[in-house]
Amino acid sequence: MTPENSPLSQIVSFILELDKLKGVTRKNRPLGLERFENSAEHSWQIAMLALSLERFAQAPVDINRVVEMLLVHDIGEIDTGDTMVFVQDGWEERKAAELAAARRIFGMLPEDPGAYFLELWEEFEAGTTPEAVFANAVDRAMPPLLNLANDGQSWRENGISYERVIGRIGPPIKAGCPALWDYLAERIEEEQRKGWFGANG
Amino acid sequence: MTPENSPLSQIVSFILELDKLKGVTRKNRPLGLERFENSAEHSWQIAMLALSLERFAQAPVDINRVVEMLLVHDIGEIDTGDTMVFVQDGWEERKAAELAAARRIFGMLPEDPGAYFLELWEEFEAGTTPEAVFANAVDRAMPPLLNLANDGQSWRENGISYERVIGRIGPPIKAGCPALWDYLAERIEEEQRKGWFGANG
Repeated sequence: MTPENSPLSQIVSFILELDKLKGVTRKNRPLGLERFENSAEHSWQIAMLALSLERFAQAPVDINRVVEMLLVHDIGEIDTGDTMVFVQDGWEERKAAELAAARRIFGMLPEDPGAYFLELWEEFEAGTTPEAVFANAVDRAMPPLLNLANDGQSWRENGISYERVIGRIGPPIKAGCPALWDYLAERIEEEQRKGWFGANG
Repeated sequence: MTPENSPLSQIVSFILELDKLKGVTRKNRPLGLERFENSAEHSWQIAMLALSLERFAQAPVDINRVVEMLLVHDIGEIDTGDTMVFVQDGWEERKAAELAAARRIFGMLPEDPGAYFLELWEEFEAGTTPEAVFANAVDRAMPPLLNLANDGQSWRENGISYERVIGRIGPPIKAGCPALWDYLAERIEEEQRKGWFGANG
């Protein structure tokens, strides 16, 4: 009988705990679907975006570390839920709660790989290494990419203005992936001129 | 204006095409949810499982390559849909259709990284390198892990017997991650003794 505290049993408990991220909903809706996106499928998509965009990173990065960071970065939301980047109230409390959650969940694992996942999670949150700066840019870029293909869906539904979009997501995307920000800024500006997804049109 | 055939525009078209994988449903249901799992969130979960299980791989592996393989391996399903591993009819036709789909979708990208993703996809399908053998084991192991936590949900709903489970998923999991197969075989055997999730009970 496999003991309940064996490394393999711990890994199984952890991976089943991760199943809960499939039930954490975000504000975007996948293109063509009515439901909200969840944080598990989002994590997959941004890992693919990072791999695709590697050559556009602002500084040379260890792309494997970027991918691993993106795969683990939302896991704290299992306990806290997802919060839109535009919500400023209670930001520090939420970040503290997410850290406690990351410690709890990665603590289900053996020291190897649990400590490594927590290190990746903290590096993403600190956002200072070239890998973390690029990973943050990629994470921030996915909602506008979806919104631009989806008539501004999550911005319209949540009353997010052009100015808030530019002010909040511009700096981190530009810092990690300037070419992508040039692309996005141009497209977002175009929507603003046309009447911000119909809001002023 | 960013030209439509610029590398960045191609990457954006590709990542929006990938959004469709969020709508490709599998036979498992996430724990505690009524809906079916989709192939995008599944790809994230098995990447995390591979990272967690690295030390249990049958042979030493380049874990980054394993993770990348798992992130891309289901992308062909955007055109073909997911098919349960127990469905044998039309296997070769499905595999040919998935290859055509992978070529179409990765072909939306610039040569770098499109050719690399297709190489990873083909390596996973060929299943011969240590990385591909381990990646296949991890991919095959996730449904039984969910089923064992979910009263055999996808096996019960699709009339899959104990013998078919053991015969079909045992060899690939054992080949890539023998310790995980020992764990699973013991747990599956236990369910068989208790009456295969109530089927004979």
